Amino acid sequence: MTDPPAEKRPIAILGGTGPAGTGLALRWARAGETIIIGSRDASRAQRTAAAIQARVGSSANVSGMENSAACAAADILMLTVPFEGQAELLKQLKPAIRPGSVLIDATVPLASSVGGRASRPLGVWQGSAAQQAAELVPKGVSVVAAFHNISAELLNGDDPLDCDVIVCSDDAAASQLTRELAAKIPGVRAIDGGKLENARIVEQITALLIGLNIRHKGHAGIRITGLPPTSYR
Amino acid sequence: MTDPPAEKRPIAILGGTGPAGTGLALRWARAGETIIIGSRDASRAQRTAAAIQARVGSSANVSGMENSAACAAADILMLTVPFEGQAELLKQLKPAIRPGSVLIDATVPLASSVGGRASRPLGVWQGSAAQQAAELVPKGVSVVAAFHNISAELLNGDDPLDCDVIVCSDDAAASQLTRELAAKIPGVRAIDGGKLENARIVEQITALLIGLNIRHKGHAGIRITGLPPTSYR
Repeated sequence: MTDPPAEKRPIAILGGTGPAGTGLALRWARAGETIIIGSRDASRAQRTAAAIQARVGSSANVSGMENSAACAAADILMLTVPFEGQAELLKQLKPAIRPGSVLIDATVPLASSVGGRASRPLGVWQGSAAQQAAELVPKGVSVVAAFHNISAELLNGDDPLDCDVIVCSDDAAASQLTRELAAKIPGVRAIDGGKLENARIVEQITALLIGLNIRHKGHAGIRITGLPPTSYR
Repeated sequence: MTDPPAEKRPIAILGGTGPAGTGLALRWARAGETIIIGSRDASRAQRTAAAIQARVGSSANVSGMENSAACAAADILMLTVPFEGQAELLKQLKPAIRPGSVLIDATVPLASSVGGRASRPLGVWQGSAAQQAAELVPKGVSVVAAFHNISAELLNGDDPLDCDVIVCSDDAAASQLTRELAAKIPGVRAIDGGKLENARIVEQITALLIGLNIRHKGHAGIRITGLPPTSYR
């Protein structure tokens, strides 16, 4: 037996009706991936899925389900929820997450989760939102931190992006899978950012970029310079 | 009376015999700035100054002094010391720092200061090394955080750099002065990163870049993308 081709292996985007989730869904659907939009509300997920399907065209394979059903239907889970919803959602989904799944976490702990400024990070006892996620998933599920620093607004557009995605995980295969998915987004280069603990820094960069966006009225991203070409995927 | 031209206004580089200090001195001397290398050891400062002078040529204006004397001779102070030396040096220099000076702090609180890994930041009670510096300088001295994410090795070379310098300060004029100095380094764009508290994130990025350098064998820097051209200097 060999693995099914990538486009047959669904990616469930949990909290997928928000701007980051729809943007990733759009870009990956265009790249031929099978996408399941997850939401608390199945009909809302289906409406979002239909809108993406309409935008990408008949070649796209996008469906919508309640979050638990989306989890149960996929081995690649992309989590795009605000920090204030992350822990609760993961606790709720725990029975639905399949053993061996990869959970890609893009959660950024911003002070806006508790009424503060989005340009300021919150401290998380575990070190980062991704490390909090790693505590909450079932055993045998690998957590990857990625896609924090990519503009949701630009993801939802049609132009290639101009940014790098730093991928952190303690599971080398899960990190590589995530880098492959990141590199399917036009203009994105994926970089191995090492262990999951480094998500502490990558998550905080988002707060800095939000501050730059407010100050300079842009959609900031980052590029890493000075590394050999083989460092990027 | 008008301000003296930039090249007559000396920049004292405290801890200026290390790689970051010599790199900045080299680039600014080439840009016509007057540079005073500061060191605990005046003769060591003079040797470093002579080496830079020889490299830049007869147009350069580079001298070397003991740190306190360097402080007393300049209103722009560039601090490039390892984190473990920062607080002690600032306490020692306090009487020598002139009122109205600008202190540009490039200190990065890395775990290597206490025997750990340079790819991991230390937590600083004040939030960042720059905010620690702000507690230690005399009243009326403005602290700016900048130059954390620039490769010392590349600074000491001859090629233009490929990176941005994010500048954080609570003093808008001091931030602008620092951005002007940053932009004198070929290839560098300077970006207003907002308040000094944002140094928390900018300092930590250095630990991430050091990890990337180790993993990918490079000299990593960052570029900020997605901002209007007027955001950069």
